[in-house]
Parts: sequence; structure tokens; C-alpha cells
Amino acid sequence: MRISELSRKTGVSVPTIKFYIREGLLPAGHLTSPTQAEYDEQHLRRLRLIRALIGVRGLSVEATRQVLGALSEEQSQPHRVLGLALGAIRISEEPPEEFEQLATVDALLEELGWQVHHDAPARGVLAETLAGLQQLGTALDWHTLLPYARLAEETARLDLDQLEGVADPLELAERAIVLTTLLEPALMALRRLAQEHESSQRHND
Amino acid sequence: MRISELSRKTGVSVPTIKFYIREGLLPAGHLTSPTQAEYDEQHLRRLRLIRALIGVRGLSVEATRQVLGALSEEQSQPHRVLGLALGAIRISEEPPEEFEQLATVDALLEELGWQVHHDAPARGVLAETLAGLQQLGTALDWHTLLPYARLAEETARLDLDQLEGVADPLELAERAIVLTTLLEPALMALRRLAQEHESSQRHND
Repeated sequence: MRISELSRKTGVSVPTIKFYIREGLLPAGHLTSPTQAEYDEQHLRRLRLIRALIGVRGLSVEATRQVLGALSEEQSQPHRVLGLALGAIRISEEPPEEFEQLATVDALLEELGWQVHHDAPARGVLAETLAGLQQLGTALDWHTLLPYARLAEETARLDLDQLEGVADPLELAERAIVLTTLLEPALMALRRLAQEHESSQRHND
Repeated sequence: MRISELSRKTGVSVPTIKFYIREGLLPAGHLTSPTQAEYDEQHLRRLRLIRALIGVRGLSVEATRQVLGALSEEQSQPHRVLGLALGAIRISEEPPEEFEQLATVDALLEELGWQVHHDAPARGVLAETLAGLQQLGTALDWHTLLPYARLAEETARLDLDQLEGVADPLELAERAIVLTTLLEPALMALRRLAQEHESSQRHND
């Protein structure tokens, strides 16, 4: 396909596609004449993934380059592909933030029996939440999180079900990012609406 | 208690407390001498709620004033208190954003059998998500959201369980905000970690 069709199929503008090619994120097309290049399905999948990493996950061009590089080395292992796509595996050299509450988070993860990377950024988010709850003087602590974690397991099963049967690693990575990131506000909105419904049921008005 | 103790118990600085009093969000203390004022439990609860509305929900002083005003009229009805605290009930005159996908959201809510306000902001968030999924050309649509919504019901039941037995309307409002808003990043982090665990289980590495 021509670059214009690639643009139409992905919603990424032609100048942006050219920018990604100059930056080395996307390989150049196959020249069919000095001024014409052809793009194939592999370009399409890679461009969709770039769009997800930059547009949906909000990564910089440099971070996207690193993820794409790491992905091409690990593409035969779906678990590694998902970890890289979703940021569970850190690729930058930046050390993770340290919170006092990380030890509590580890206790929670052990209780749950979850196998996760020791430096998964989500661990820091949990530690930060626990610090925030403590600072506000609430009675909520990590035990409060346990039943929520069990529901998160069921949510994750639904997520992984949506990705079953996707064999191409680039497509798997892209779909995982879209599903995980784009659904976040929707899941929080569903929780708000469900709270309202549940509250109306309990308080009978 | 003195203003200094009120400050210590809430983590809100003395100048900020004085600002809230000048703005009419918090009633002045009871003067015990021309330069000394006493504050009671009601001040403490109200200040905690103000802190939650401004610091946790991120409302402006003006919006906080409106919520507090509406709350004082509705404090005998827990369902209304929760709706106001969590923003399910709009108090501003601003019309809700209109998305083409709102009709689809209504179909989803009807399928779920949820009783929610017609102008709940969360409806707009769902419509926006559906628009985003469509724009990216994914196969995900509102049917994808149904099983997630069932899990959101269970999450909401856990949330409401945490608020059972809280009789004071100001305390109920404050706890609902803290629980709902502060747990949001934690719930998303638990989903990420659960995905990683589930992926390692399924892909066996």
C-alpha cells in the first residue's frame, strides 16, 4: 500500500509517519520508483503499535524506540511481549521510586501469591496509595486492598481472554496497550455508576 | 480544641484553615477570649471533608462551597449525601458534554439494570471511551464492557461495605471521597499486577 493508505488505515498523518521513519521507529517502505514507496502489513502493525505506545501510553519517542528494540528481541515470548508493552518490565535505567510502604506491598503480593517483577511500577503506585491513606489518618490499610485484589484477578482474566489467539507479537503488544490503558477511565466510571446504583439499593430511595 | 490542634489533627496548615474560614467554607471557632477561639468535633469533620473535596477530589473553593451547601440540605438522606460527595449529582449549571455514544451507554446501563442519574459525569466518560475505541478501529464495543461492569458491581459492594455504619453525613461524605478517589490508582495498579501474574500463569514462563 501507499503511504496515504497507511495513513488512512491508522489515522496517523503522512507527515507524522515520515517523522517516525526519520526517527527510525518505522522502517522505510520498499521503493518502487524514485518517488514511490510501498508499505506492507508489517508496517501497518508496527505503526499501530507506535501509535498505541505514543498516543495511548503517552511514551516519548525515545522510550518508544527502547520498547520497540526490546520487543524485537523477545517477540517469541508472549509473556515478555506483554510485560514490555504494558510497562511491567522496565527498560529505562531510571531507578524505581522508593517508598517506605514497599515492604507492605510485598507482604500483600505474597499473601496474594502473585508472580510479578520486583520493580514493576505498579508496586510503587500501591505504596504511594498506602502512604496517602496513612497521611490522611484513615483506617484503611493493606488488608482493605485484599478483596479488591481478588476482583482485580478476575478483571485481569477478562483482559487476557480478549488477547487470546493473537499470534503476531506486534499486534499482541498493541492490543494489550489499548485494552489496558483505554479501559482504565471506563472501569473507574463503571465503578462510580455501580456505587450509585448500589447506594440507591441499600438506602432505598 | 485550639486551631493548632485542629491543624495537627488534619494536616491542614493554620493559614489554610484561616483562609477556609474567611471564604465561608468553615464556620469560625467559638471565641473564648478576644484572641482565642475554640473548635469542636463538628469543625474537625467539616475540615476533613473540605480537605477531601479540595485535596483529593480536586474541586475549586467555589465548587466546594456549592457541594457543602447542597450537603447541608440533604444530610438526612445517605444516598443523596454519597451522590453529592462523589459528584454523581451535578450541582453546577454547566451542561454535560454530549457524545454520540451516549445512546450506547444508555443501552449498556439498561442491560445492567442500574439506577443512575441521567447526567452522571461517569456516563460521559464511558461514551468518550467508546468513541476512543471506535476511532482506533478496535473490535471492542459496549458488549466488551458488560463483564467488566459485573465486576464493577462487586467492587461497588466492597466500597459501600466500607461505609456501613458511618452515621454522620460529613464523615460519610469524606470517607466516600477518600475511598473512591484515593483507591482509583491502586485498583488500576492491582489490575496491572494481576495481568502480569495471569500472563505468567498462562504462558508458563
